[in-house]
Amino acid sequence: MAFNKDAHTDHISQQFNAELEAIKSHLMTMGGIAETQLNQALDALVDGDVELAQRALKADEQVNAWDVEIEEQCTRIIARRQPAASDLRMIVAISRAVNDLERIGDESAGIAKHAIALADEGESPRGYNEIRQIGSLIREMVSETLTAFARYDIDMAYKVVKKDRDVDDAYKTAMRSLITYMMEDPRSISRVLNVIWVLRSLERIGDLSRNISQHLIYLVKGVNVSHCSLKEIKQTIKG
Amino acid sequence: MAFNKDAHTDHISQQFNAELEAIKSHLMTMGGIAETQLNQALDALVDGDVELAQRALKADEQVNAWDVEIEEQCTRIIARRQPAASDLRMIVAISRAVNDLERIGDESAGIAKHAIALADEGESPRGYNEIRQIGSLIREMVSETLTAFARYDIDMAYKVVKKDRDVDDAYKTAMRSLITYMMEDPRSISRVLNVIWVLRSLERIGDLSRNISQHLIYLVKGVNVSHCSLKEIKQTIKG
Repeated sequence: MAFNKDAHTDHISQQFNAELEAIKSHLMTMGGIAETQLNQALDALVDGDVELAQRALKADEQVNAWDVEIEEQCTRIIARRQPAASDLRMIVAISRAVNDLERIGDESAGIAKHAIALADEGESPRGYNEIRQIGSLIREMVSETLTAFARYDIDMAYKVVKKDRDVDDAYKTAMRSLITYMMEDPRSISRVLNVIWVLRSLERIGDLSRNISQHLIYLVKGVNVSHCSLKEIKQTIKG
Repeated sequence: MAFNKDAHTDHISQQFNAELEAIKSHLMTMGGIAETQLNQALDALVDGDVELAQRALKADEQVNAWDVEIEEQCTRIIARRQPAASDLRMIVAISRAVNDLERIGDESAGIAKHAIALADEGESPRGYNEIRQIGSLIREMVSETLTAFARYDIDMAYKVVKKDRDVDDAYKTAMRSLITYMMEDPRSISRVLNVIWVLRSLERIGDLSRNISQHLIYLVKGVNVSHCSLKEIKQTIKG
């Protein structure tokens, strides 16, 4: 069942090999666009840069176009090449990763909208400390999950899954302190809520990055770890 | 390219036919569990019934188990049967619908957790009017998208996609009035935020139900309408 990344060279059909590599490379391109979109949205928010936020919003069209394109390529290659075993797993894992990247694009576009709203209503009186801190964890997760996928590096994928725990903890702490802040200064509610929505989107992007790492583990190890504990995932990786 | 629901009877392999029907029927079972879970979570919240909320939480394990099981069945049938055209589209559409149902289960479990928190902290001073109203739209959407899938009814699927617009409007109105309420009574913030989280989950379940209807349209018409406007979807259905 194990996945051998050099196995593709053994394919009878070089053409099939080239098609699989093309899909993988398109996934990486799509990932790069979604990652840039997230970084732009966060920078736009912290710097109050409406023009940059609009670029991040606009990038969602490209992400969506890749979503449709890569899904089509996956279905076409299944129909034409009738892949089995690790080739099929690669296509299934890519198709799931595309789905999650598309959602990362949606959440980043959402953050860009809040950046525009905050530039309009005025900065949150509370500042953007929580967004900077959690945002920096999430930027790392997105970047690492894409690198892990590019290199078939399941140890790195495991680190991403683990980091999602830290994000969840940081998110809970941030929420508690923002709720206290709103109670003490009710006039800030509307602006602080914008910050809360952004944190929710970031937390969700963390979940989606974790999902992508889990798809990679499925691709390499042939085991679906979507609903497994950290300990079970560790065992799968070592096994 | 058109999908003919009677075409399965023409299969050379009756066994293949039976396998496809089994996967479809498992999808319907999973959908039924997720639907019950949502209804339980909403009833638990409005009635302050902690025990019912715990049942809804528990049901998520079943939904997750079906998620893994059906995904495996889909991959296995592709590897063994090498389906093409409308059979492959059916498997792809089911696999995507399973993904969305799993997320509906997650969101319903989230609602159940808020039901427990609200039973603990005391009912929202504002009551649950918004949750009742939007919840009733969402219950309809989930039920209709499953019925549409069971019957390959794309006109019904289109209605679900359209209804998602009404939900988005109702959601925005509700959010505005809840924010005003919190500003006027800051002591209510924590409890009203629980209501807001539930509304967000409902809005998301609306999106996921719309997605499932879009997968059905893809299955029947062979066109990916994920990022299409309502008008474009209508043209696809008529075409």
